[in-house]
Amino acid sequence: MITSAYFDNSATTMPCEEAVLAAEKAIKEFWGNPSSLHGVGNSANALLEGSREAIADFLHCSPGEIYFTSGGTESDNLAVLGAAEKMKRYGKRIVSTEIEHPAVYDTLTKLGNSGFEIVRLKPGADGNISEKDLFDAVTPDTILISMMAVNNETGAVLPVASAKKAAVRADSHALIHCDAVQAFGKMPLRPSSLGVDLMSISAHKIHGVKGAGALYISKNVSILPRVYGGEQESKVRPGTEAVPAIAAFAAAVKALPNINAEREKMSALRKRMLDRFALEGGIEVNSPADSSPYVTNVSVTGIKSEPMLNFLSANGVYVSSGSACSKGKKSRVLKAMNLPGGRLESPIRISFSRYTTEEEIDFLCDMIARAKKEIYSK
Amino acid sequence: MITSAYFDNSATTMPCEEAVLAAEKAIKEFWGNPSSLHGVGNSANALLEGSREAIADFLHCSPGEIYFTSGGTESDNLAVLGAAEKMKRYGKRIVSTEIEHPAVYDTLTKLGNSGFEIVRLKPGADGNISEKDLFDAVTPDTILISMMAVNNETGAVLPVASAKKAAVRADSHALIHCDAVQAFGKMPLRPSSLGVDLMSISAHKIHGVKGAGALYISKNVSILPRVYGGEQESKVRPGTEAVPAIAAFAAAVKALPNINAEREKMSALRKRMLDRFALEGGIEVNSPADSSPYVTNVSVTGIKSEPMLNFLSANGVYVSSGSACSKGKKSRVLKAMNLPGGRLESPIRISFSRYTTEEEIDFLCDMIARAKKEIYSK
Repeated sequence: MITSAYFDNSATTMPCEEAVLAAEKAIKEFWGNPSSLHGVGNSANALLEGSREAIADFLHCSPGEIYFTSGGTESDNLAVLGAAEKMKRYGKRIVSTEIEHPAVYDTLTKLGNSGFEIVRLKPGADGNISEKDLFDAVTPDTILISMMAVNNETGAVLPVASAKKAAVRADSHALIHCDAVQAFGKMPLRPSSLGVDLMSISAHKIHGVKGAGALYISKNVSILPRVYGGEQESKVRPGTEAVPAIAAFAAAVKALPNINAEREKMSALRKRMLDRFALEGGIEVNSPADSSPYVTNVSVTGIKSEPMLNFLSANGVYVSSGSACSKGKKSRVLKAMNLPGGRLESPIRISFSRYTTEEEIDFLCDMIARAKKEIYSK
Repeated sequence: MITSAYFDNSATTMPCEEAVLAAEKAIKEFWGNPSSLHGVGNSANALLEGSREAIADFLHCSPGEIYFTSGGTESDNLAVLGAAEKMKRYGKRIVSTEIEHPAVYDTLTKLGNSGFEIVRLKPGADGNISEKDLFDAVTPDTILISMMAVNNETGAVLPVASAKKAAVRADSHALIHCDAVQAFGKMPLRPSSLGVDLMSISAHKIHGVKGAGALYISKNVSILPRVYGGEQESKVRPGTEAVPAIAAFAAAVKALPNINAEREKMSALRKRMLDRFALEGGIEVNSPADSSPYVTNVSVTGIKSEPMLNFLSANGVYVSSGSACSKGKKSRVLKAMNLPGGRLESPIRISFSRYTTEEEIDFLCDMIARAKKEIYSK
């Protein structure tokens, strides 16, 4: 009999054993500065470069295309602002979506305030972004298309591979940025096959340790830095590298199980959960039918998110109401889908990881059933 | 009999046991997202806020004045660019020095290229920045004075406390930024007593773990962010916080020994070293006579830095030729001091920590003596 279950893996994940060990080893044994030109520095540098290779291998790119950052938010900012600054001589138009993470959405708002034209595609009522809207939006003077691979609140899978096609068809110079923070390690993602020039990834969403992320920058493009200083990361992102979190990132990537087998397992868990919800009744699914099996957004009729989250947390079940990065606020993503009012008040996001079990699913469903009885009766 | 000795503590330091344990505990037990509104998130948030309080206590400021970043470089960039952007309506003049770390120096160059007027004070032949030059440089339209507390290559102690006085005397709105990365934990530093509005500090220079730094921002001033996204760090620095490195930062701060007692110990170690160098002959001291006892820059006549560093590293002695952040290049800081040509070719920086011992000093001196014989004879 379990007493707690964690379903907030889109916010962060428990570090895997491999990542824990890699971080500990780096902290204790490879604490030199990778830029130092002596033995202690060299061994830290070897660990850093080995980590870069492991992540590049996973993305089927070259190590020189991986730039370490402090995390997904910094990667997104570097990609969007660095690309806009680099490309502004070709135009001012940037195409994105209404359902991006704040690290892209708010960064584009900032660019919009300084003279860039920001076009944000709206999702349909199903939560999906239409390929046709994308093709219609991209013009010859579009300089950047920024589209996430998987939405962090609903699990919607976006038509990322169509971005480069739209750019080519419009005969634009547009760079393609993909915020792949939620998708990385959970669906097949090769930037070169997807036609993506810039891809943001983060360690702590795949059982790594907080404090490391990376930006893939295709060797065929260049962007301008956002931070100035030392020679680290080819001057694209100066500052002493967070070697322990980076080593843990690489270890977590190497420990990732087979993506397709894992997705099947997640789909089966999701089916088990949705079947129980259907039996229970009064629970509406906000995620698209074809969303990533890792993320499910539902609304429990008549129970607002906050009392539901509190009840569940008090009983050892950890879910969220939306993005951890915009705590407490009403979801911009669900609003963009034009969900009926009541559903906007009561979303809960249930996000899985490879450690999620059937027993935990059952525990979650039991607790939601109890919550309905106890909260309604108040 | 020891076989190795690490003297590159200005580049990075070995994590102390307290920091190692704090990082491990955070990775294993407090891995939640501090922004998540449930039990797992709350306990990570409590650790984060406790860490903030520990660092604020040490600086005699309030926790709300501490903003976590990925490290010193990011703190410097946020301070300089965020202040310039905020203050530009009052003027375009920024006063700094020729001997700042690249994280400030190069960032100011960038601002200089976009219309700001950058005035950089030159050090004297002794390596010190003159208070008179500072007073002369600050004008009513000066918006920022950025001055490091201790130079990373020579240990020169800069007249930081005079910056606010110069700003007040000129009747300017200038904010005062201090890059205290090398000074923090090694000399008494209270931003409020020093009249400093913005102070950059870094964990891995004081036996913390790489991946965390902080910017002190006085509650009396505000600057603009450089990164956009979530609600973290009061939106001044969004992105999921690197809780393990931050917890280790706080643990390292709490483990800092008494500053004055420690400085006496360092001064005694330095005297032991300089006495040996004087006996040995052919070794000239580039650091100011009154520099921080933690950092000593010397030139060994006729031996370039690279072969010296390689010889020492091969024999287990780890020093540097200057800043780890500008590896291999000739030192801008020593050039600004107008050192005679030969000394510019052969600087070595010897930087101490609280773990440095007399035995290590003797080992270093023996190895430099051997290097002189063996390299000269080649």
